[in-house]
Amino acid sequence: MTLTEGTPQASEHADLDDLTYQLDRAHVFHSWSAQAALHPLVLAGGSGCRVHDHAGRSYLDFSSQLVNLNIGHQHPKVVAAIVEQAQTLATVAPQHAVRARGEAAKRITARAPDGLNKVFFTNGGADANENAIRMARLHTGRDKVLSTYRSYHGNTGAAVVATGDWRRIPNQYARAHVHFFGPYLYRSEFWSATAEQESERALHHLRRVIEAEGPSSIAAILLETIPGTAGILMPPPGYLAGVRELASKHGIVLILDEVMAGFGRTGDWFAFDAYDVVPDLITFAKGVNSGYVPAGGVIIADHIAADFDDTVFPGGLTYSGHPLAMAAIVAALDAMEEEGIVENAATVGRDHIGPALAGLAEKHEIVGEVRGTGVFWALELVADRETREPVSGAVMARVKSELLARNLLAFTADNRIHVVPPCIVTPAEVAEAVAAYDEVLGLPDLS
Amino acid sequence: MTLTEGTPQASEHADLDDLTYQLDRAHVFHSWSAQAALHPLVLAGGSGCRVHDHAGRSYLDFSSQLVNLNIGHQHPKVVAAIVEQAQTLATVAPQHAVRARGEAAKRITARAPDGLNKVFFTNGGADANENAIRMARLHTGRDKVLSTYRSYHGNTGAAVVATGDWRRIPNQYARAHVHFFGPYLYRSEFWSATAEQESERALHHLRRVIEAEGPSSIAAILLETIPGTAGILMPPPGYLAGVRELASKHGIVLILDEVMAGFGRTGDWFAFDAYDVVPDLITFAKGVNSGYVPAGGVIIADHIAADFDDTVFPGGLTYSGHPLAMAAIVAALDAMEEEGIVENAATVGRDHIGPALAGLAEKHEIVGEVRGTGVFWALELVADRETREPVSGAVMARVKSELLARNLLAFTADNRIHVVPPCIVTPAEVAEAVAAYDEVLGLPDLS
Repeated sequence: MTLTEGTPQASEHADLDDLTYQLDRAHVFHSWSAQAALHPLVLAGGSGCRVHDHAGRSYLDFSSQLVNLNIGHQHPKVVAAIVEQAQTLATVAPQHAVRARGEAAKRITARAPDGLNKVFFTNGGADANENAIRMARLHTGRDKVLSTYRSYHGNTGAAVVATGDWRRIPNQYARAHVHFFGPYLYRSEFWSATAEQESERALHHLRRVIEAEGPSSIAAILLETIPGTAGILMPPPGYLAGVRELASKHGIVLILDEVMAGFGRTGDWFAFDAYDVVPDLITFAKGVNSGYVPAGGVIIADHIAADFDDTVFPGGLTYSGHPLAMAAIVAALDAMEEEGIVENAATVGRDHIGPALAGLAEKHEIVGEVRGTGVFWALELVADRETREPVSGAVMARVKSELLARNLLAFTADNRIHVVPPCIVTPAEVAEAVAAYDEVLGLPDLS
Repeated sequence: MTLTEGTPQASEHADLDDLTYQLDRAHVFHSWSAQAALHPLVLAGGSGCRVHDHAGRSYLDFSSQLVNLNIGHQHPKVVAAIVEQAQTLATVAPQHAVRARGEAAKRITARAPDGLNKVFFTNGGADANENAIRMARLHTGRDKVLSTYRSYHGNTGAAVVATGDWRRIPNQYARAHVHFFGPYLYRSEFWSATAEQESERALHHLRRVIEAEGPSSIAAILLETIPGTAGILMPPPGYLAGVRELASKHGIVLILDEVMAGFGRTGDWFAFDAYDVVPDLITFAKGVNSGYVPAGGVIIADHIAADFDDTVFPGGLTYSGHPLAMAAIVAALDAMEEEGIVENAATVGRDHIGPALAGLAEKHEIVGEVRGTGVFWALELVADRETREPVSGAVMARVKSELLARNLLAFTADNRIHVVPPCIVTPAEVAEAVAAYDEVLGLPDLS
């Protein structure tokens, strides 16, 4: 039986949308949701920044699905690479060597700073962070991991401790997680008035947390370079360099989580390229192959990799370096390079998205702040510009459905619209999306 | 650039093997290994039970890679399904509905016992267990998870606790893991003489652990139906039914981990089909689509799924229900059904593998025990049949390399050869592998 279809032409495919919807409701249990009230959107195909259902209704995808589709839907070179690898060798265990894996690792490390030359591949971002934490703890012989309250690093936390065999023993780390506040000027935790002050005070706070926890107990500081789901929180000047300095001073491993921000989204290959900082470990997923095949990984500094030259690294997974995922990485990174896709994200962000969103903020009282870079922007919606009180969940649900009614697939989180189209987005598509945001934000009965 | 090749014909491809090896050594960090001494085998393609390098040297794959390749290499229907889905819609976020996902969930639940009707998809087995544990803890309001010392459930354990946002709060479970001993007659922890005694005593031990920990503190008992990497430890008569009874009596969720044993490997769709037991949660990965695309998941009993009808399930991942993985599941399960692949595993196991391995045990002193079912067998190698002292790591390394020299890709763990070919294996291929085992086990200078 054939499960998928070419581009649908007519409403005769509406029955496939119904079937798909019914199957989903009957048997699929969804992430991060109460199940009863879900009404999932049916999708059947896509191209570039557009995606469509079986009946042919098309949406402009300004969500990049889960902010992973940096190269857009159905890039022909990535699809061709997956097809070719599938027809040659679809799967191979991680202990063997397969060309696509080495080529992928070569391309990834080529874009990383000097001194980070090895890649440990995983299935996604969560297990990338798991393994980075494992490396940091084994490297330092310390337990604690510091990360911010406004962060998302993945959803795992028990499987290795449930494991009974020897692989549990060097991994019983499910403790000693300490959280601190990062910089966020618009809703400062530090009573700051300026970006400079926010940076200084956030560094002071982190220094105090390190001192109070005890520097010699801290294995790692784990940070999203630009916290993503938490609100695209641009680090203020000097913050990341200050964190790097604190980490180095105390022998703490600095892990930068580039799962959402990396591989083009900010208009750079890595988000930290725009700041004066080199991490010890970089975690990635999503944009590395735009999620065409599940993949993630850790890019490892030589001084940490060397720890495991003669000592067993106690971590691994069946699909580490999966050939289909690796072929998709090679093709995606080559296409992004050849077609100037990262540069496009930078240019469109600077010349079109940024100015257009600033225009929306000027026009609509409900927009409290606009921030971002590249194709990684947030519109913070507020009930009151003075108090900065977030709009309600009901308002956000309305915003999202009104945007969908205008054929715009939007990404929302808390009280924010995240404007996160693929890196290939054109000025015309930006204008189309901004027109939809403009209409919806201007609805008289919105708040 | 083209990274993959068709079936190689001549030694002119040997340079590709060199290149692949060099790239791997330069940039790929390997699972569960000290990195310096690795000599990964280069693989470039495969078909059925065979896999080959670029130069055309072919190996008989009795490892199924990491015991995941139930349908064999490059099954044309699974490859075609991946190709078709890749050319239609390679990736879609989990909150949307896509036909392949619903069709996959329908096929999976159709093979599960009555009353388990929903599937939460993950990237692999570790995050399947993570989410099953999460469900059990939220369902019971209890913390502890009991699992056996001889088990493997995955390698994650920190990412969600590192997470700072609200998704951490309902997930701070990285504690309260209790381990107990399961049945293993050949190396009994209970001084048992017979399988019946081992079953009774192992159940007594588990009952005592439950009582000593406090039944009302225990959320789940997590068991591999047949512990795999730990040695293909066949549960003795009555054991699993006894565990089910203990779990039910105390309101404990029974999670059966079918990641390695499920989807045909034992000669049944699920390993527990051969025993009198219905779990509350089933975790799976590997065999569901033979690892052609990374996938795993949890099959959920209705009474647990219902907890999350109106309450948010606090777990999720970007690639949950990834379309390529789902298309591969649909095609793999349909092909296994149409081609009688599960029945083949049962028949070949019973009529060919079992008798042949018994013959090896009769002939070679080094074989301490043979156990298994379907295409899931272990040869336990011992230095002394009386004391059952395992052979050394050096002997096992020699065994593995001698088998490779005979073009047999073997799976070894501790002091065991695991005889785990694809479920499509033929009697002729079994004979070929057994001849290699026979030669190597008979080497005069082996131990």
